[in-house]
Formats: sequence, C-alpha cells, structure tokens
Amino acid sequence: MTVELISVGTELLLGNIVNTNAAYLAEQCAGMGLSCFYQTVVGDNEERLAQTLKTALERSDIVILSGGLGPTQDDLTKETAAGVLGKKLRMDGHSKKRLQEYFAKRKMEITDNNWKQAMVPEDAIVIDNENGTAPGIIMEEGGKRVILLPGPPGELIPMFEGAVYPYLAGVEPGVIYSQTVKLCGIGESKAETVAADLISGQENPTIAPYAKTGEVHFRITAKASAEKEAKKLIKPVVKELKNRFGMNVYTTNEKVTLEQAVVDLLLANRLTVTTAESCTGGLLSARLTSVPGVSEVFKSGQVTYSNKAKHKLLGVKKPSLDKYGAVSENVAKEMAKGAAAASRADVAVAITGIAGPDGGSSEKPVGLVYIACNVRGKTKVKSWHFSGNRTKVRENSVVAALTLMRQCILEYYSEVTFR
Amino acid sequence: MTVELISVGTELLLGNIVNTNAAYLAEQCAGMGLSCFYQTVVGDNEERLAQTLKTALERSDIVILSGGLGPTQDDLTKETAAGVLGKKLRMDGHSKKRLQEYFAKRKMEITDNNWKQAMVPEDAIVIDNENGTAPGIIMEEGGKRVILLPGPPGELIPMFEGAVYPYLAGVEPGVIYSQTVKLCGIGESKAETVAADLISGQENPTIAPYAKTGEVHFRITAKASAEKEAKKLIKPVVKELKNRFGMNVYTTNEKVTLEQAVVDLLLANRLTVTTAESCTGGLLSARLTSVPGVSEVFKSGQVTYSNKAKHKLLGVKKPSLDKYGAVSENVAKEMAKGAAAASRADVAVAITGIAGPDGGSSEKPVGLVYIACNVRGKTKVKSWHFSGNRTKVRENSVVAALTLMRQCILEYYSEVTFR
Repeated sequence: MTVELISVGTELLLGNIVNTNAAYLAEQCAGMGLSCFYQTVVGDNEERLAQTLKTALERSDIVILSGGLGPTQDDLTKETAAGVLGKKLRMDGHSKKRLQEYFAKRKMEITDNNWKQAMVPEDAIVIDNENGTAPGIIMEEGGKRVILLPGPPGELIPMFEGAVYPYLAGVEPGVIYSQTVKLCGIGESKAETVAADLISGQENPTIAPYAKTGEVHFRITAKASAEKEAKKLIKPVVKELKNRFGMNVYTTNEKVTLEQAVVDLLLANRLTVTTAESCTGGLLSARLTSVPGVSEVFKSGQVTYSNKAKHKLLGVKKPSLDKYGAVSENVAKEMAKGAAAASRADVAVAITGIAGPDGGSSEKPVGLVYIACNVRGKTKVKSWHFSGNRTKVRENSVVAALTLMRQCILEYYSEVTFR
Repeated sequence: MTVELISVGTELLLGNIVNTNAAYLAEQCAGMGLSCFYQTVVGDNEERLAQTLKTALERSDIVILSGGLGPTQDDLTKETAAGVLGKKLRMDGHSKKRLQEYFAKRKMEITDNNWKQAMVPEDAIVIDNENGTAPGIIMEEGGKRVILLPGPPGELIPMFEGAVYPYLAGVEPGVIYSQTVKLCGIGESKAETVAADLISGQENPTIAPYAKTGEVHFRITAKASAEKEAKKLIKPVVKELKNRFGMNVYTTNEKVTLEQAVVDLLLANRLTVTTAESCTGGLLSARLTSVPGVSEVFKSGQVTYSNKAKHKLLGVKKPSLDKYGAVSENVAKEMAKGAAAASRADVAVAITGIAGPDGGSSEKPVGLVYIACNVRGKTKVKSWHFSGNRTKVRENSVVAALTLMRQCILEYYSEVTFR
C-alpha cells in the first residue's frame, strides 16, 4: 500500500520552521511497510490544498495531512479535505464537550472561533487530542483513506502513536512487526560497518540504521501473515546484533529511551543519583527527570555555572580552578566527588565544558567537554571534542553523560570493561 | 514571480533525514520576494521525478531541485531535468578539469562513474562546487528557469549564496520583508480574536498568527520594490499590535526567544537570577543557560526533587511540606525565598507541580503547577492547570515561569500590573 504526506502551513513555505513532522511520519510509515513516493508542502490556501489532495488521492492509497487544524481563520485543512471527499461538517458533541472541559480546566474563556475545532466531517473517525484542542480525523472514501493530524509535533506524535499507528496496522493485510535495537557509545558509520552485511541483502526482515544524537538505532521490520511469524523472523537478527555490539546495546525495546535505561539500571541496583552540571545547565537532570518514577533514585541536582558555585556548592578546590581551569579533568572529578558527598547519592555525574559560541581557546576549543562519573567513590572521567553549535554541544554532552553513567554502573557490578 | 522547490532523495521519503534544505531555500527565496506555493519531495525515480518537474514548470516560474547529482547510478536528477527540458548532456571541459584537480588534491583515484558529474546540459550555466564534486546547473527555457543544486547542505548553501542568490536577485525585482511580533501570557485564540480585524482584510502586509508552546507569534510580511518601502508598510501594523497587546509583547525581533528576552531584562537591570525546580527537573535552568552570555546573571540553580532536598537545600519548612504538601502555594513561595537566600540572587523562581503520569489526586490533579517568583524579597505566586502528557506539562511550566519572571521584573521596576 502507498501513503503520501501533505504538510500544510505557510510557515513551512516561508522556511520559518523545518518540516520535522514529515520526517517523523515518513519514518513511521516506512517502518510499517507502507511505500511513500511523494511528500508535499502547501500553504493555507483552499484551492491549492484541494488540488494537492486530489492529485495525492489519484496516486496513493492513504494520504496523511498535518497542520491547519487550529481555531484561526487561516486554518482550513479540515474544511478543504471534507470538501474534496464530498463530506459535510457537523458539530461533534464529544469533541465539543472536551473543548469545554479543556478551557474550563484552564479557567479560560472559549472564544467563538474555538467551536470550529469541534466540527467534524460526517461519518469520520474522530481521534481525541490529549495535548491540544484540535481532534484528529480519519476519513474513508472509495477505498482511499485521508488522515488529518494537528501540526504541533507535541500533539501529532502522541496522536499518531496512540491512534493512527494501530489504525494503519489494521489496514495492511498481514502484519508488519518491527523491533528496534538501540546502541549508545558507538558512532553511526562504525555501527553501519559492523552491520553492513546484515543491512544489505536483507529483504524480510529489513534492517535500517537510524542515527540519533549520540545514539544509533537499528530497526528490524518483518512482514508476515501473523505477528508470531514476524517475531520469528526478527528474533535471530536481534540476537546477531546483540552478539556483534555487546554492551553498546542498551535496549531492544522501541519504547525505552537511553535515560529510561539508565534510570532502570539505577532502580535495579538500588542506586540513588545526583547531577552537577556546568555547560549543560540542567539539561541532564531534566532528561533524567523526564522518566516517570525517577523520584525513587533522583533526589536533587545542582547547576553550578560559576566557579564560585562550583566551589561553594560542590567543594571544588579554588587552586584546582585556578591551576587547571573550570573545564578540566581535575575539576570534573572534584565536581562529581563533591556532588556525591553533598547529596550522599550512590552515583554522581558531573559535566563541565565549553558550549560556545564564545569562551573557546586554541588549547581549549569550543566543544571540549569533560564528564566525570562517581559510583560509590570510584570515579571515571572522559573528555570529548564535540562539533556544532551551542545546542549541539550541550545535547551531545547529555547523551555522553548518560552513556558514561551506564558504563560506570555496569563496570562497577561486573568485570566488563568497555571499548 | 513564483518559485517551487523539489527535493530529491529516498532518504527523505524514508524519513532518515529532515529536509533542512527546503527550509533554507524557502527562507532565502521568501527574503528575495519570490512566492513559494509548493515544496515537493520525490525519490530517485526517473518517471516520478520527471512528472513532478513537469507539474512544477506548469505552475511556477522558477524550479529549484536539490539532491540526486551524485556519481552513482541512482543519481539521475540532472539527466531527468535535461530530458524534461529537451536538452542534451555534453562533457564540460572546465568541470572535468576541476574533478581531476579535486581527486588529485586528495590523492584519490577517479572511478569511471565520477565523470558523469562533469556532464552538463547544453547551454546551461554551470556553477562550480567549492565543497564537493557535483557542479550546480542553471537552465533557462521558454521563460522558465530550472536550478539544480547538490543535496549536502555543506555544498548547497555556499553554492546558493555564492551564485544562485546573485542570479535570482537579477531575475526578480522587489523584495519581501517580514517582521515578527512575539507575545507571551496570552492564548492563541484570544490573541487571534483581539487581532481578527487586522488579520482578515490585510493583503499587503499580510498578518499571520503562529502558536508556540505558551506563546503566540504574529508574522507581518510586506512586498515592495525596496526593503525601505516594505518596512514602511509593516511599521504601523507592528505599532498597532503593540498597542493592542501591550506588555504581552516581549519582542518584535524574529531572532529573540522568550528566554533571551528574560536574560536581556536581567542584564539591563543588573539582576542575578537563580532557579529552584521540582517537576521541571532542570528544564528552566537549561532553557536560561541556552542563551549565550547568561553567565553574567545566572550563577547557580537547584533541582530539588524530594521533600528532603527542598528542606535541606532551600530551607522549606517541614510543617509547610506536611500541612500543604510539596505542590502548594506556600511551598512554592518558600522555595523561591529559600533559593534567593541561599544564592543571594536578586531574582529567584521556583516551580513545583505534578507532571504525571502518576501522583495526581482529585484535589491536586496531574498538570497542577505552582510557580513563585521572588524579586528582591517581593514574591508573587501563581497556579496553572496544564493538560497533556508529562513532557507537555513540563514544557508549559517552563514557559509560564519565564513569563512570570518577566512580569515580576517589569512590575518591580514600573507601576504596571498585568492582566
């Protein structure tokens, strides 16, 4: 079956925002075995949108539109799509009720244009929006399927995962089952080289590598008549990847993130953790606390941005700061030890680096980051040279810290030593 | 004049990479006064690519294609585009010489398929590629223009800036100029209602609202013969929006983010700031420290996740925690006061809430968040009921905290009190 993506939004045509929704939806659809041959971006213009949708329906089985479901005058995706399929809009009681609850909960007044969002095409499947006011819509007509999703990724992604993915999984005859093997602590090209023979040649299951910041994910996708069969096809591939990548594999569960894996490791070993961050300014603790239930192991963290704070809150020695500088192996170590002592946590991780754009020198360039991890008094410190802008350096630092934490904990409890 | 973008690449259709080239080219073209109504992504498939290009040429004056200029067999953008325009390919001596130099310089041997990259359509304008092996191509035919650029941004961007921009500048008289008015502390539909009469009716300049998490941006775009004229058209609209939205307007500069505006406000008033975060776990300090130069005002922050940490690090009274609970107005206030006292910062902001998925009750549901801001001893506290998942609640809390900080600082220095 073929799927086609239409992203609606003037801000995309003006280049104000990057079309991350299209990449997300394309990746999801590919993972389900749906073939995508076209992606189109069109503005909030009824005539051009209608023409684009008509063309898409002529050449594809499923069309997913995103954006243009807001309450404002220039949001007309729903009206236009319903028109193309010859469906009338009706007020949906359920959606209307949810709108009222949404605004009541926030003690906000409902303006008239909001009601527009409770209007849905006749005999459409309505998808509740748990993160906003625009419901998703699925319309079926003459063997074709048109799916409308809100533009904000924070609304689109949960809606796709919660309702659209299961819906599409039911549409395809047979099943497509995929499993992800997630790696940390190894580069993309290295990982691809190690798995090159598996990636090429494979037809069913297929194996596709995806590079995330500081991570590499392999998605193994099998087509079969039943899930049981698909799983049987996937199992040996997962086993082989685990053999080849060993401790770099942190999970084989699609839903488990690196921070989740680290928190699980802490929980499993009854270890509490604390953070001491300089250049990342709280990004690491924010990432750890994004995991529900983290309060069992994470009690407090410190953002010590200034040297004074590093000294006062973490007990970093002034001579160390003067002699080696804040961005140094020694200070990273002292930060981790100091954080462990101050919080009495079993695990303490410290990050100090130069995120840029300023503050770099020839001997300590922008992107130089030291990360130390202390597990029950045993400290390990590593340095990195990240490239890219301030955001990239900070994000890479956080992933490197999570990877180092995992490594140190595993080494503490086993004889394993990582490459 | 109209321009249309065609991005060629299977990796885009599979969602392996995000289409940043389209965003870059769209922004550049908009800035030059070219109207872009469509962007298309298509794979390395001759038939589909040819059809897509034909459709684009029917409705647009200029078509910019990116990607598919590599040496391999599946790179066929140049061959296909030349075919559509009825032009033959010939070996270009200049490009051939550059190829030889490129490989010689790197001591690499030229494989036969590389010569393909020195083939150019007859009477085309050839653009040297300073960062790779595929030259850019400009073809003119029957009043239409087709421009071929390599896919890697590191090659495409310099080539566009160096050769394509000057070329197009000569083609299209007039400019598009746009300015953004950014609001915080007001909902999208409310903002839309207040500006409804400005949005409808307007032709030049146009006014479009965009909703971000906790923010609303109005983009005003004018077309004119020169930038000076365009600015003249935009000025009164910006003034009117400032009149209507008053203190909710935090900037009229496209590049300034809310966190930047808050940091600028702190710098301007020589105020230092500290953070005390519970449910956001460091997201607020991370957002503040994403601003270069923040070290002038931000020295340290605390992530006090447990009650014990709130008591120990911020001096929140145990009776307050027992009587009102960690998620309460009183505890938020004490956190802010304690953080100010501990860090001696002029401004201290504290966040405590229930991010979910667990921990909610009928009387304190998931999404309930208290934020307190203390400016030189004067404390203001507010509560919110956010909906959505853990991520959404945390992100909204951070924006609400930045908005409250801005409000408290402005109120401290003026007699203004916000709605």
